[in-house]
Amino acid sequence: MNGEAKKQVLRSVAYGVYVLGVRGGGIGASAESHATAVSWLTQISFEPPMIGVALERESTTLPLLRAAGAFALSVLPAGARSIASRLGRSSATTPRKLLGIAHHPAPESGAPVLDDATGWLDCRVRAELAAGDHVVVAAEVIEAGTQREGETLTLRETGFRYSG
Amino acid sequence: MNGEAKKQVLRSVAYGVYVLGVRGGGIGASAESHATAVSWLTQISFEPPMIGVALERESTTLPLLRAAGAFALSVLPAGARSIASRLGRSSATTPRKLLGIAHHPAPESGAPVLDDATGWLDCRVRAELAAGDHVVVAAEVIEAGTQREGETLTLRETGFRYSG
Repeated sequence: MNGEAKKQVLRSVAYGVYVLGVRGGGIGASAESHATAVSWLTQISFEPPMIGVALERESTTLPLLRAAGAFALSVLPAGARSIASRLGRSSATTPRKLLGIAHHPAPESGAPVLDDATGWLDCRVRAELAAGDHVVVAAEVIEAGTQREGETLTLRETGFRYSG
Repeated sequence: MNGEAKKQVLRSVAYGVYVLGVRGGGIGASAESHATAVSWLTQISFEPPMIGVALERESTTLPLLRAAGAFALSVLPAGARSIASRLGRSSATTPRKLLGIAHHPAPESGAPVLDDATGWLDCRVRAELAAGDHVVVAAEVIEAGTQREGETLTLRETGFRYSG
């Protein structure tokens, strides 16, 4: 395999930047809500509306999400690089990442939605697929809301990398 | 569910435009190679490198891809709207979509790679996950190549919609 080409082509895939929020208080989870920045995400069904998101197998998020069985997805607006940066950090080194970031609970899941998001999806986990060092979580969109106008923050705009 | 908000938020997800090519000659498949435009795609693992792509359950592509067990992904460059438009059509109404579009076989799968692509990934299918009206195909990247400089064509640039 041409490793350099592999990296370069995988990095040419276009991504937005989103925040996946999970409500605290699930079985075995802390009482506090949790959030993390994600980019490996796509819609995967029209009917029912579903999205798929790939999460690191060893992430803090995955067990919390499994315990809650639901999450909220906030779409970050262009310009929200600092929020993406903060929420993109590892929870191991930056616990309580949501501290100081305005948020409110999604109506169905109670998972945190960022006040700054252009819009949000309230999602219920339907299935998982193990994929190498990640797990693809397939979830149904059960409620949605728009909050403000704006373009979606792209991974390219942030200058961050999460591919290759 | 707020259907209008659901549409709007799902449409705010950022996508690139890619061409998924499948080699002809598989069991039950035609001898001719096949290609289709896709956007519901994301990397899903670093190690091994894997991508996930959601295909319509009733698409022409899915049985061909299953028969071949492999495919090539071409990354379209900005400006390649007409190729995306042609390859985005249904095979039912536009058979032999690759006719007149320059392509060459990927080294491992023999699947068609577009000459105009900035780069390509040669992929082997590893798993499937049914998701509503689509199927998520999880595939390992087994070879890759770069062909030219250029930004990735975004779904936004094309003005096409495949979300909501």
